[in-house]
Amino acid sequence: MHKSYSVSSLGPGGLDLTGAFFKPIRGAASPSRIKRHTKISVIGAGNVGMAIAQTILTQDLADELVLVDAKPDKLRGEMLDLQHAAAFLPRTKIIASVDYAVTVGSDLCIVTAGARQIPGESRLNLLQRNVSLFRNIIPPLAEHAPEAILVIVSNPVDVLTYVAWKLSGFPSNRVIGSGTNLDSSRFQFLIADHLDVNAQDVQAFIVGEHGDSSVALWSSISVGGVPVLSFLEKQEISYEKETLENIHKAVIDSAYEVISLKGYTSWAIGYSVANLARTLLRDQRKIHPVSVLATGFYGIEGGEVFLSLPAQLGRGGVLGVTNVHLTDEEEHKLRESAKTILEVQDQLHVC
Amino acid sequence: MHKSYSVSSLGPGGLDLTGAFFKPIRGAASPSRIKRHTKISVIGAGNVGMAIAQTILTQDLADELVLVDAKPDKLRGEMLDLQHAAAFLPRTKIIASVDYAVTVGSDLCIVTAGARQIPGESRLNLLQRNVSLFRNIIPPLAEHAPEAILVIVSNPVDVLTYVAWKLSGFPSNRVIGSGTNLDSSRFQFLIADHLDVNAQDVQAFIVGEHGDSSVALWSSISVGGVPVLSFLEKQEISYEKETLENIHKAVIDSAYEVISLKGYTSWAIGYSVANLARTLLRDQRKIHPVSVLATGFYGIEGGEVFLSLPAQLGRGGVLGVTNVHLTDEEEHKLRESAKTILEVQDQLHVC
Amino acid sequence: MHKSYSVSSLGPGGLDLTGAFFKPIRGAASPSRIKRHTKISVIGAGNVGMAIAQTILTQDLADELVLVDAKPDKLRGEMLDLQHAAAFLPRTKIIASVDYAVTVGSDLCIVTAGARQIPGESRLNLLQRNVSLFRNIIPPLAEHAPEAILVIVSNPVDVLTYVAWKLSGFPSNRVIGSGTNLDSSRFQFLIADHLDVNAQDVQAFIVGEHGDSSVALWSSISVGGVPVLSFLEKQEISYEKETLENIHKAVIDSAYEVISLKGYTSWAIGYSVANLARTLLRDQRKIHPVSVLATGFYGIEGGEVFLSLPAQLGRGGVLGVTNVHLTDEEEHKLRESAKTILEVQDQLHVC
Amino acid sequence: MHKSYSVSSLGPGGLDLTGAFFKPIRGAASPSRIKRHTKISVIGAGNVGMAIAQTILTQDLADELVLVDAKPDKLRGEMLDLQHAAAFLPRTKIIASVDYAVTVGSDLCIVTAGARQIPGESRLNLLQRNVSLFRNIIPPLAEHAPEAILVIVSNPVDVLTYVAWKLSGFPSNRVIGSGTNLDSSRFQFLIADHLDVNAQDVQAFIVGEHGDSSVALWSSISVGGVPVLSFLEKQEISYEKETLENIHKAVIDSAYEVISLKGYTSWAIGYSVANLARTLLRDQRKIHPVSVLATGFYGIEGGEVFLSLPAQLGRGGVLGVTNVHLTDEEEHKLRESAKTILEVQDQLHVC
Repeated sequence: MHKSYSVSSLGPGGLDLTGAFFKPIRGAASPSRIKRHTKISVIGAGNVGMAIAQTILTQDLADELVLVDAKPDKLRGEMLDLQHAAAFLPRTKIIASVDYAVTVGSDLCIVTAGARQIPGESRLNLLQRNVSLFRNIIPPLAEHAPEAILVIVSNPVDVLTYVAWKLSGFPSNRVIGSGTNLDSSRFQFLIADHLDVNAQDVQAFIVGEHGDSSVALWSSISVGGVPVLSFLEKQEISYEKETLENIHKAVIDSAYEVISLKGYTSWAIGYSVANLARTLLRDQRKIHPVSVLATGFYGIEGGEVFLSLPAQLGRGGVLGVTNVHLTDEEEHKLRESAKTILEVQDQLHVC
Repeated sequence: MHKSYSVSSLGPGGLDLTGAFFKPIRGAASPSRIKRHTKISVIGAGNVGMAIAQTILTQDLADELVLVDAKPDKLRGEMLDLQHAAAFLPRTKIIASVDYAVTVGSDLCIVTAGARQIPGESRLNLLQRNVSLFRNIIPPLAEHAPEAILVIVSNPVDVLTYVAWKLSGFPSNRVIGSGTNLDSSRFQFLIADHLDVNAQDVQAFIVGEHGDSSVALWSSISVGGVPVLSFLEKQEISYEKETLENIHKAVIDSAYEVISLKGYTSWAIGYSVANLARTLLRDQRKIHPVSVLATGFYGIEGGEVFLSLPAQLGRGGVLGVTNVHLTDEEEHKLRESAKTILEVQDQLHVC
Repeated sequence: MHKSYSVSSLGPGGLDLTGAFFKPIRGAASPSRIKRHTKISVIGAGNVGMAIAQTILTQDLADELVLVDAKPDKLRGEMLDLQHAAAFLPRTKIIASVDYAVTVGSDLCIVTAGARQIPGESRLNLLQRNVSLFRNIIPPLAEHAPEAILVIVSNPVDVLTYVAWKLSGFPSNRVIGSGTNLDSSRFQFLIADHLDVNAQDVQAFIVGEHGDSSVALWSSISVGGVPVLSFLEKQEISYEKETLENIHKAVIDSAYEVISLKGYTSWAIGYSVANLARTLLRDQRKIHPVSVLATGFYGIEGGEVFLSLPAQLGRGGVLGVTNVHLTDEEEHKLRESAKTILEVQDQLHVC
Repeated sequence: MHKSYSVSSLGPGGLDLTGAFFKPIRGAASPSRIKRHTKISVIGAGNVGMAIAQTILTQDLADELVLVDAKPDKLRGEMLDLQHAAAFLPRTKIIASVDYAVTVGSDLCIVTAGARQIPGESRLNLLQRNVSLFRNIIPPLAEHAPEAILVIVSNPVDVLTYVAWKLSGFPSNRVIGSGTNLDSSRFQFLIADHLDVNAQDVQAFIVGEHGDSSVALWSSISVGGVPVLSFLEKQEISYEKETLENIHKAVIDSAYEVISLKGYTSWAIGYSVANLARTLLRDQRKIHPVSVLATGFYGIEGGEVFLSLPAQLGRGGVLGVTNVHLTDEEEHKLRESAKTILEVQDQLHVC
């Protein structure tokens, strides 16, 4: 099955009104001449991919939305389910195919596909299978959408963003991992909920490796313009370092908690990636903690490694990395994460 | 388990900053005195309920969003997954509970819960089980949210809207079934896609019983202000009545097709119900084909029956039913549907 | 003064943080390589131009918004006043200049500039002065933004859209007059207000020449899917033709009324043109009554003339004209308008 | 003229379709029973009032929008100009009157009316005339909308917010001056423009008296989570205090610059107040620098005085004041401003 789905024809005896209904205007240029719309492709139509696609559709971020998946039935079902809402939404062209050719000319490609762990399988073996999967995904994307920005969501996100960078041949500023963008939102939510403020008034970053070894940047947290740590000092409010670590731990645990309760996470990662899509495609020049090529920052060396750092994003992809101050301990943790990831990468066969 | 979930505490040694961080302003009235926010409750946290809840959240239609379900784990997982997106969305209070007390003061209650068919079970038996389910849902809603509008999504939607009306004791203008609102969107999409126009430029209603015996109102279809049937006549374009029936059939089939392909429908019904929520709560006075008490319209008589008709909706619920012209055949079909539904209702034990 | 304004420098002793604050990421491509954002230029920073520009900004329709006017002070004041709202809006680059070079690469150019009538001046003399003005506006726009769609708002809009078409050398599908798009909205509002329905549920077009000789298409009006004229017939509600004419007259008068009351119109034309901008740039393929090259439609002949007809608009500009049925009287009126306009055009010196 | 405007009747021979078009549904409760929509009143239909009203309309923040002004013609012209856009916007009821009775039940009243300085008039005399004006505005608002939040925009904003508080008899948490909310946005814009970041990533407050003696809180500025002053220290970037003062001076000058260039400010204050309206009515619990009763904070004493401080706002009005750290110099400036304002207030005859 190598063609994109189109809507079911209107059946035998189908009535072709198009010609009669509209008269083309004299001298009209071919529509393909002026074509500067926004096209987003989502690879993988599972829970995460569909939450991303649907949020992008609701937030009206794309003129064309493409779904690619290996399962044609599921794929067509999801496409139709989105298309049926046409009367309730601004017009977006929605297409789906098992063939990557439909991604041609995409501005943004979001990869959510990933292999599932087989009982008893080692993490390295799983990762190697994901690398194999990416070998079937990334090169066709790079071929059909050579100017696109790639956003990798599949886990382990930092290593797979590196793999996607290598397989795509893209400059590093156009390959981004969703990284700790969602972890940071969870962090902001926990702090905001505790203080009963709006989470958008909380500035709080989690950086480093996505997952258990991530680093919470306590020194740069502020709420409504008030830097929290210096506030505590000035108010002479004593606190144990353990307290802060417990909040960070609650962030890490909250992902596991959702998975144990509902079986997977979907909505929050959907909003998180739609949020990145908006900043990237509408050139918002906002700062997000996402996985970028981190070598050379904070003493990270010894090889090419992707880790989440507060990066400024825009239409050109990654525009720069914020020069946020880290404590010695925070820098040390980052370098340790980098080292661990590099060791894993050394064992992989990427190309 | 009979209390609403709150966010996990920040752990042992929890740091209480709230008091230190904000000083309350002198003379501030108690927050509960002035409380006129918008509260929506969604009953049932399955695929349909969650697609509705998430679309309502993305479209910022509520200040408070409540989820109720019988499964506490699934429920808490879905609540957390939505809450974790706080940094990406306007602030909405999201709570969840197995106890209907959390729905207190809701402006809108959307019921998506329903029993699943047991292999070999008769339709009537299934329906009776759903009636039993509604006996546990509707009275507590009516008690805790006596001023709410009820929107019923569970199937068979027309009979269950009648059941909800009876069980709630609400006036009929505050009990609405989602009915053919989604069927009509599918109809608009198929016509718009065929003509390559925006579906919002297509006026096309499907009315009557939600499902196989629904009625397509061909005589009132217009596209961009052009009434389609009279257009065909004036342009002397011949068409077979069968052609029109095929388009209607494609609408009916498309729901089955999505279910057979992905196992259920979710996104389109989510957008459809969020669309109704917006019209109702923001008093948009728009016309939607939804299931309303139809007795007395188009010669429907013999008992109280809910069927989809083009109804004007606003903050007061159903404001009126549009006096759309039906052909004799269309009226006949409506009356037949009404008769069938009444026969079913006669066999049910509602109260 | 021939350069675009930039924001005031931060004064003597200005602190250059940019370099220190962000480190550019390794291998980042030049930002100009991938540049596919949306740019809208508004010519004329008077009440109409600014209402359009501000509505476009609020509705987040552009990534870059350009203002051009002959008065540098007023222009810079308006630019700064919009820029100062940066914290309350998604990021949009806002620039202003007296030099058309700032419009380079625009996707859409909206022309609102126009000469004011001198007491005692003939309409033809005023028009000829506007043609002279357009000779200074349109060629530089066509040079700097050769792929743009032109939307003409200046009055008399139909003749000036023709003039802009001639002066630009653009294909006719990329030159559009705002025409009766606003008249139609006023028409919808009056009907909706009378029936207490949502104006978006009213399909009602006014076509033809913008102004006193416009044509109301009574035969294609529908409200919530109910064609109004056939409804009146079927309900045997008698009405005088004069009644309908009074409603049309109220539409025409309402523009004069606003001008006599507040001195000019601004908000409604601002929303009307922002609405066109959205349909055009987001490829919505919606149908709007706008001024398009009408020769060849409805028996209009004898020369090139622009008149409002229900046209389908998208990223390519005018995609087609709807084949709406006109009565003989309506067609006659259209042809008379065309004849009058052609006579005026014959007296003009355009190129 | 003491009644609210309604839309012009459809003329002699007016056709009353309403009854025929809709049939009310059986048992429908009176629409007034369930009435919980959002109503905003704007007092003063000048440039500032209309920019606020139009932005509120575009951003869909109200279900009912009321304009009050002393000039009936201007008022009706502005109302019609907004109403004519009905087809392009979600439905909002827009009414206007010279009689304050139309504000009945408002959730939010925004006062922009103010006297203009007569050449040679002292500031105190002008202020006393504004107090007289407020005596005609505030008591009728307090009578007709006793549960409303008052937002005062008229200048001098801090004194007039105090006057409004006294005249209304409202608790202080429901009387707010727009204060330095806009100054802070200008501050954020200048910093963001200099660093080429999104202004929403810049946390920067200007507090104190709105105008020349306002206080820039340098110690709490952060950009993308990086506290700027400590960043400069850690990077050993030297800067003169004068540099920072120049940036603050540029903020103060920018308001004067806009006024000297275009004659008044409108757009930015419109967005600023719409932004406050959203936080207040949608209970966003966000922190804004606005004029609140400041007595008791930062050593301010000696009488009741309103000054801008970072305050948390929500549906209940002012929820609290952030405990932001001020330097001794900043606190001193605040207290000096308070003293000056108190001296002015002592000379006024308020009640």
